[in-house]
Amino acid sequence: MSLTRIHNLSISLDGFATGEPQSKEAPFGHAGERLHEWMFATRFWDAEGTGGIDNAFAARHDHGFGAEIMGANKFGPPGWQDDPEWTGWWGPNPPFHTPTFVLTHHPRPPVEMEGGTTFHFLDAPPAEALRIAREAAGGLDVRIGGGATVVRDFVAAGLVDHLHLVLVPIVLGRGVRVWDGLEALEDDYTVEAVSSPSGVIHLTFTRRSTA
Amino acid sequence: MSLTRIHNLSISLDGFATGEPQSKEAPFGHAGERLHEWMFATRFWDAEGTGGIDNAFAARHDHGFGAEIMGANKFGPPGWQDDPEWTGWWGPNPPFHTPTFVLTHHPRPPVEMEGGTTFHFLDAPPAEALRIAREAAGGLDVRIGGGATVVRDFVAAGLVDHLHLVLVPIVLGRGVRVWDGLEALEDDYTVEAVSSPSGVIHLTFTRRSTA
Repeated sequence: MSLTRIHNLSISLDGFATGEPQSKEAPFGHAGERLHEWMFATRFWDAEGTGGIDNAFAARHDHGFGAEIMGANKFGPPGWQDDPEWTGWWGPNPPFHTPTFVLTHHPRPPVEMEGGTTFHFLDAPPAEALRIAREAAGGLDVRIGGGATVVRDFVAAGLVDHLHLVLVPIVLGRGVRVWDGLEALEDDYTVEAVSSPSGVIHLTFTRRSTA
Repeated sequence: MSLTRIHNLSISLDGFATGEPQSKEAPFGHAGERLHEWMFATRFWDAEGTGGIDNAFAARHDHGFGAEIMGANKFGPPGWQDDPEWTGWWGPNPPFHTPTFVLTHHPRPPVEMEGGTTFHFLDAPPAEALRIAREAAGGLDVRIGGGATVVRDFVAAGLVDHLHLVLVPIVLGRGVRVWDGLEALEDDYTVEAVSSPSGVIHLTFTRRSTA
């Protein structure tokens, strides 16, 4: 069965998945890279990195996926829609290696990158986008890649089977909140928490079987 | 040296220390007792309770304090100021056993309870209230007892040496947020996190030595 999963979404203690303002120079605004340092320190990111709990979680990003869905704010800085040459932050060989669906109100023709990533641009609500991505995933899982707004929309719509958040011990004060609109999320999910020696906390939400 | 400490402030994943609306029948609003179940299950609360990590943290509430400061919203439900007979939620022998300073814009004469608790009513800003409580504490520590607004005010004013929060794995969606106005709190504190088998996460903020 093909699942819909979210992995490695880092948030501050006060629930922000990015700071502000976001720009080409500062994709995460005043948060800088502080939300992601835990991941840069793992073997998943760097061959010299750590191989413990943070790495075990980080590596789940890469296994079993046949498609990704991401929001316009993950694909590029504000205004990328006006730049016909913009093909994402990730250079010629993006780390997705599957069909990747970018949600935007300004669709454009698909762009085939190296390494198996093809960007498709889609103006569709969550359920419809997921149907299309699921078809492209060839029986594998679909990853919701973020950012926070897209994660929130898909979780609120009841479309997500597994959600992995990483609580980073900083207080950002402003940015894009991940929790808004998700009241009583625990009713539908089994929640687990584990703290890592690195200082972050891994939170997993696994949808309860409806069988 | 007399420290200012906060213990056992339970918050939801989205940072609310209470739900809404608060009333005499529902002091924590729609949160009910869900934020505090972890504590009711400990030996600190109940002789039949657990003796592990949750209990170790819970018990710190009781040791080394010579005074407490609490907000009007902790002392009573909305409107208690209009009830001259209101002496708090806790019956004749409240669990403070020290001078206890209630911050309110409607001060009244002190009320002496059983067991060493005397309620004093104080219309004062945080630094001034702390000075008065510290004097009453006889060299022991001062506890900031909550609720969320008072915790936030004292932390934001730089008056708190040690802060213990308990993250409960529920999403409340609405209520009183503890994080607002505390951007970059991690600059002044060493932050530790540890997850408990009960499912909650203990977060401690210990002020870095300024020596």
